[in-house]
Amino acid sequence: MKVLVINSGSSSIKFQLFKMPEQEVIASGLVEKIGLKNGEIHYNTQKKSVNIEMEIPDHAVGLREVVNLLMSSASGVISNVDEIEMIGHRVVHGGKEFLNTVEINQDVIDRIKSLFNLAPLHNPPNHVGIVVAQDIFPNARQIAVFDTSFHQTIPEKAHTFAIPLKFRDEHDIRLYGFHGISHHYVSQKAIEYLHNPKAKLIVIHLGNGCSMTAVKDGKSIDHSLGFGPNQGLIMGTRSGDIDQGVIFYLMEKFNMGAQEVSDLLTKKSGMLGLTGDSDLRGIEERANNGDEIAQLALEMNTYRIKKYIGTYAAVLNGLDAIVFTAGIGENSELIRAKVCEDMNYFGIELDANKNSIRSKEIREISTEYSRTKVLVIPTNEELQIAKECFAFQQK
Amino acid sequence: MKVLVINSGSSSIKFQLFKMPEQEVIASGLVEKIGLKNGEIHYNTQKKSVNIEMEIPDHAVGLREVVNLLMSSASGVISNVDEIEMIGHRVVHGGKEFLNTVEINQDVIDRIKSLFNLAPLHNPPNHVGIVVAQDIFPNARQIAVFDTSFHQTIPEKAHTFAIPLKFRDEHDIRLYGFHGISHHYVSQKAIEYLHNPKAKLIVIHLGNGCSMTAVKDGKSIDHSLGFGPNQGLIMGTRSGDIDQGVIFYLMEKFNMGAQEVSDLLTKKSGMLGLTGDSDLRGIEERANNGDEIAQLALEMNTYRIKKYIGTYAAVLNGLDAIVFTAGIGENSELIRAKVCEDMNYFGIELDANKNSIRSKEIREISTEYSRTKVLVIPTNEELQIAKECFAFQQK
Repeated sequence: MKVLVINSGSSSIKFQLFKMPEQEVIASGLVEKIGLKNGEIHYNTQKKSVNIEMEIPDHAVGLREVVNLLMSSASGVISNVDEIEMIGHRVVHGGKEFLNTVEINQDVIDRIKSLFNLAPLHNPPNHVGIVVAQDIFPNARQIAVFDTSFHQTIPEKAHTFAIPLKFRDEHDIRLYGFHGISHHYVSQKAIEYLHNPKAKLIVIHLGNGCSMTAVKDGKSIDHSLGFGPNQGLIMGTRSGDIDQGVIFYLMEKFNMGAQEVSDLLTKKSGMLGLTGDSDLRGIEERANNGDEIAQLALEMNTYRIKKYIGTYAAVLNGLDAIVFTAGIGENSELIRAKVCEDMNYFGIELDANKNSIRSKEIREISTEYSRTKVLVIPTNEELQIAKECFAFQQK
Repeated sequence: MKVLVINSGSSSIKFQLFKMPEQEVIASGLVEKIGLKNGEIHYNTQKKSVNIEMEIPDHAVGLREVVNLLMSSASGVISNVDEIEMIGHRVVHGGKEFLNTVEINQDVIDRIKSLFNLAPLHNPPNHVGIVVAQDIFPNARQIAVFDTSFHQTIPEKAHTFAIPLKFRDEHDIRLYGFHGISHHYVSQKAIEYLHNPKAKLIVIHLGNGCSMTAVKDGKSIDHSLGFGPNQGLIMGTRSGDIDQGVIFYLMEKFNMGAQEVSDLLTKKSGMLGLTGDSDLRGIEERANNGDEIAQLALEMNTYRIKKYIGTYAAVLNGLDAIVFTAGIGENSELIRAKVCEDMNYFGIELDANKNSIRSKEIREISTEYSRTKVLVIPTNEELQIAKECFAFQQK
């Protein structure tokens, strides 16, 4: 069966067409700069690569162009839209409503809309993607896979904030967790690799956004990103954890508005705020050349990750493996090395040679004698969504 | 020599008169409700206890009454103010200025004043206490002991926030740490008890305010309270760590001002916010009687402490002992038991019998075979200040 996976952002649509259960990628690509004159479409099959520049006024136009490419005589891989039996949508915020992947109907759509205020940047474009896809693929089953669902197993003591309970019970203010599709995929892969469904794992997702999850018995039991998009680890432009007193101080002393402080902390902080550079490779190069600010930023970044390894080792009361994933986690030898430095108390012993190998495969980079295994597992959120669609169809 | 220790708050003065180096408490007490008609003075010597109710318009009147009591024919312990050779003042915030205890002169006073904006609730009354004492004890040497000094050894990677560095470098926004006098005293006692100056320690100060410190080689290397008074652990009325997104969400959705949100998080949250009760004994009793909200609050509280034990074990890359101190840490058998539950990965094994003993002495409450020792060490900030005064005089 063919499954189309759609990740619809505010001005972009990422897509992959899978043949399942073979997990074969038939076509993939990206529509970007939706709403602008100079929109772009990138489309790839195993044989062809197509790049188009055109005005893309809205998501509907963008997705229709993708369908044209999928069916075109020159580059097509299907002859009819109905060949696509299922469409899997990534939806960022499922609130406390969606514990699992669901088939989309009007009720589900209404509930996704009711969560707009919790995820104002993400759920609205996810919703648009669903509505447009329903129109274009009227006969396909549409499935919603939520980034929060994997974290619904986080217990009450960990997802409740220490503020009056009415804010949780009446206003849904609690920890939800993000990057759940990635953490789910990677932790399953780790469990398969270790042949141990009870493995105590810490998954370290380092991409544009960064987060860590404590995984026990295949389930998320705590997570560093919570209610909003900026907590826990230091990210490209986001501060992660910061003393709340700083927020109030900035507002009072500098007369900054709430939005201004929020923008400072999410868009102008993190590695960019510290170094002026948001590209990690550039920062690593500067650090290698003796730039002390770049060195400090890398120290801070990896120190924060180490702290969370300790935190989650306590939450798990044990540790079998730590797993690096996503762009930085999969590719930065330096970040991985610094995180694993001086962590022998946790049984972490990195093999420098194995750590230096670049690969797209699952790999173990700890020494043979390391009590805690260190793994690198490439994430694949699209495949996870396709797998969940396929599993859904089997029900 | 006689040393008077003064802890001057906004409407109170705590004092203790020590004979040093014998560490003997000659007199102690509290002036409270300064500024109100129904002010109170409580004064104790080894033989007498005096309680006075009177109008105390300001700190000067309060301290003069204390001096009258110290010199009175009925309850006095000195015959002349000049018998008091040194006065040790607790000063909450020393900024990055004061790495150590200092003798007070006009320059020191000016610098303490320049830190008012970083500690608006604490440094102004500390300053008043100094000025008043200088007037009353013109011949005594006056010493300032800072709650931040012990934490000045926290390295840059741990005290810098991941925001543009100009905020640190030009505006002094960084982690300072608090309860330093207590953490210093208790960690020294632990080192003596363990006969190991290199012990890797985690000090858990649970009082009105709560904080934890990672101590290595007798020095603070990280700490859970940072820039303001509300971060890290869950406290009586303070939330401790909370997703910063909650702050912005409350301001936007509920149209709350910054001060209002800050008040919610510092005065109406924590154990009070969760349970409606700020007295821990009452909460423990409710939990014992099956109250689920009280149980949740205790779970959350101790879960947070466990997480920080993991965090600081990572920072220390090891762990020799955890140390409970301050009102709750010294007296709550239940909190200690819950913190140590399921922590055998960290070599923590509590002896339930030893944990149940109430005492004012240093005690070890882990089992004989516990790899990590669990200690209870009563804190004594006043004695620490007196000791620092005495050490200063020896120089």
